[in-house]
Amino acid sequence: MESILLKGPWVAGAGIADVGVRDGKIVLVGTAVAEDCYDRVIPAADCALIPGLVNCHGHAAMTLFRGIADDLPLMPWLEERIWPLEARLTADCVYWGSMLAIAEMIRGGTTTFTDMYFFEEQTARAAAETGIRAVLSRGLAAGPNFSKALAESRQLAEDWHGAAGGRITIQLGPHALYTCPPATLAPVLDLAAELGLALQIHLAETRGEVEESLTRYGKSPVAVLEEAGFFQLPVLAAHGVHISQEDIGILARRDVRVSHNPASNLKLGSGIAPVPDLLSQGVTVGLGTDGAASNNNLDMLLELRLAALIHKGIHNDPTLVPAAAALEMATSMGARALFLEDVGSIREGMKADLILVDLNKAHFSPRHNPEAAIAYAAHASDVALVMADGQILLEGGRLTTIDEERVIFEAQRCIRAIKG
Amino acid sequence: MESILLKGPWVAGAGIADVGVRDGKIVLVGTAVAEDCYDRVIPAADCALIPGLVNCHGHAAMTLFRGIADDLPLMPWLEERIWPLEARLTADCVYWGSMLAIAEMIRGGTTTFTDMYFFEEQTARAAAETGIRAVLSRGLAAGPNFSKALAESRQLAEDWHGAAGGRITIQLGPHALYTCPPATLAPVLDLAAELGLALQIHLAETRGEVEESLTRYGKSPVAVLEEAGFFQLPVLAAHGVHISQEDIGILARRDVRVSHNPASNLKLGSGIAPVPDLLSQGVTVGLGTDGAASNNNLDMLLELRLAALIHKGIHNDPTLVPAAAALEMATSMGARALFLEDVGSIREGMKADLILVDLNKAHFSPRHNPEAAIAYAAHASDVALVMADGQILLEGGRLTTIDEERVIFEAQRCIRAIKG
Repeated sequence: MESILLKGPWVAGAGIADVGVRDGKIVLVGTAVAEDCYDRVIPAADCALIPGLVNCHGHAAMTLFRGIADDLPLMPWLEERIWPLEARLTADCVYWGSMLAIAEMIRGGTTTFTDMYFFEEQTARAAAETGIRAVLSRGLAAGPNFSKALAESRQLAEDWHGAAGGRITIQLGPHALYTCPPATLAPVLDLAAELGLALQIHLAETRGEVEESLTRYGKSPVAVLEEAGFFQLPVLAAHGVHISQEDIGILARRDVRVSHNPASNLKLGSGIAPVPDLLSQGVTVGLGTDGAASNNNLDMLLELRLAALIHKGIHNDPTLVPAAAALEMATSMGARALFLEDVGSIREGMKADLILVDLNKAHFSPRHNPEAAIAYAAHASDVALVMADGQILLEGGRLTTIDEERVIFEAQRCIRAIKG
Repeated sequence: MESILLKGPWVAGAGIADVGVRDGKIVLVGTAVAEDCYDRVIPAADCALIPGLVNCHGHAAMTLFRGIADDLPLMPWLEERIWPLEARLTADCVYWGSMLAIAEMIRGGTTTFTDMYFFEEQTARAAAETGIRAVLSRGLAAGPNFSKALAESRQLAEDWHGAAGGRITIQLGPHALYTCPPATLAPVLDLAAELGLALQIHLAETRGEVEESLTRYGKSPVAVLEEAGFFQLPVLAAHGVHISQEDIGILARRDVRVSHNPASNLKLGSGIAPVPDLLSQGVTVGLGTDGAASNNNLDMLLELRLAALIHKGIHNDPTLVPAAAALEMATSMGARALFLEDVGSIREGMKADLILVDLNKAHFSPRHNPEAAIAYAAHASDVALVMADGQILLEGGRLTTIDEERVIFEAQRCIRAIKG
């Protein structure tokens, strides 16, 4: 792999600096000297260099369903629109849907994504081929398919955990408490412990979910999972919209990581997660797009913007979630939320997941604070270069590892076949 | 001016259609036949053609202050940061700040903007030169400068109302009730009546503003203005965040137009305007960016997205403000909010303010509903062509009427001089 010197961008925490990349890692943050030898030097003087964005929650293949059913309540959306389509999904469709998602994510500066779905080996294959970093899980729900899905999870871990030079991590994915009652969780926890895997789960996304839990168990979903021993293992919880102060205490004490997915939560009318409370209690909070069917994009810069805006607005406090904190959630905290230890920061020794944001644009002018510029004004199209694991995935407006035209064509073909 | 045929885009309400433009107006929405003669045919098969976006509230020159002071409460932001800078603004700075704002707005598909500021003739000059449509007002506040500012308003109207082939409209701009108590409003209303101008005002932006009004007048700002006879003239009210059901009744009865500015209201911690209530009461609601100092961008597609998302989220109702309604607020309703009668729709006879959105992108794939695609997934960079009054202002990634590099340079020079 070629070694690369990014010459003179603005780097968060370091100001103007040179950043050297060798063998997939950051080897220099400072001033490159003449003796340093790199295969390639990329001038980056008018750019900000930030860690690649980390998408902490999603369903890549659902990109096929983007815009197919909007502005509907959750249950009719799921039951009448999404589930009938999902029933007709094939492995081929999941592959092309995942490729489409990855193309969009790389264009928007995402270098790590998280996924919970089925035919998950296809998503793993797409991640392996395209060079993006991925944290993947086969979704699990109680019912006739549960044992099969659990066996597929084991297979997925055996085939893909640590694959693609460590770029792919497998987690187990019990879908949610309302689809995986406590009794179903025991074999999942056993398998996670046996294979040394973390877990990901949808948690407290809607008010209805919490009410059902209170009716059924007399406790919130967080409290039920705590009692079931779920949080004794590393857990990434998606959403966390409807959680009490006691719930937040449990999440903080158990070091449960949370993915805040503002666009999806707003669009489905689910609500707004208490992110300032989670952060002040020390919970690690990343950001996620959720699937494109409920968003309808996979643009982490927009999630970052929403995270920086909506909490100020609903709490009447413009000091909440400042630009730097939102950027941290989208990068370093996001990586921690996924239990990735050498990703998400620009420091020597870290994996070279990096993006250049071109600041030489009208909407970034005049030039003051690059962090605020990115949090409040950056578009996906300002991302000039994307690198994951030291490999360039986007440069000069082109995806280097994806035949984008074909992906768009195949995705259109797949959704036509599914719709029948 | 050259006549143009936009060949085969998707057009809201018309499906796939050809749209012909001649002498600044739309002359065809349908199927072009061989006999039709246009100077130029632009293929637009993979695009959506929508009306140019209408920005209903802003302070263009404040683009110079973008990112200069973020994540601060409103009063320290204004008193410690913004006002000291504004005191040093010159006519030259307002010109270049306005040019920078216009460059960004055109790139994002905005063809009409609204402004309230000072040295407003410079903003008018920038609008005239760049080809964008503008609704401009000289801000008015009680105090030693009031008479001078009112005289400048008259001069602005005499020089610029209906100028640039009708592209420029002047309004009077009493800043807000808290800066223009009822006694100051009489001469403003007289002047508006004399010159036949509409009025624009900031209204009920913050909770503090409403509380002060209740303390001082025993009434909400809306009720005070109603009593002062303010709404007997055509009024565009910006913000309307903290308004009661009675206030909404007054606004509806008096046909007051409202600019909803979600990003600015969120970022300054002001709150969220009751837009679904306003719409259901029949109030005409447009969208606005406010100034870049409190946003920090002038991207109407983002305002459109926020308007489509946040009301669903805070009311737990995913059916509120559907994609088509948000798009309408950003276009046809926005034009009505500015009292522009021949702008904002794609119909024969309307002014040719049009934008092409390139749908051939990963983040718009697969292709389902173009309205939802634009509302929930479009970036400024997807805007492939911008036309105002029949003149192309953006094409092939280039602004045709603005030397963008120079504008960025001059804006940077201005803010350096102001900061000292």
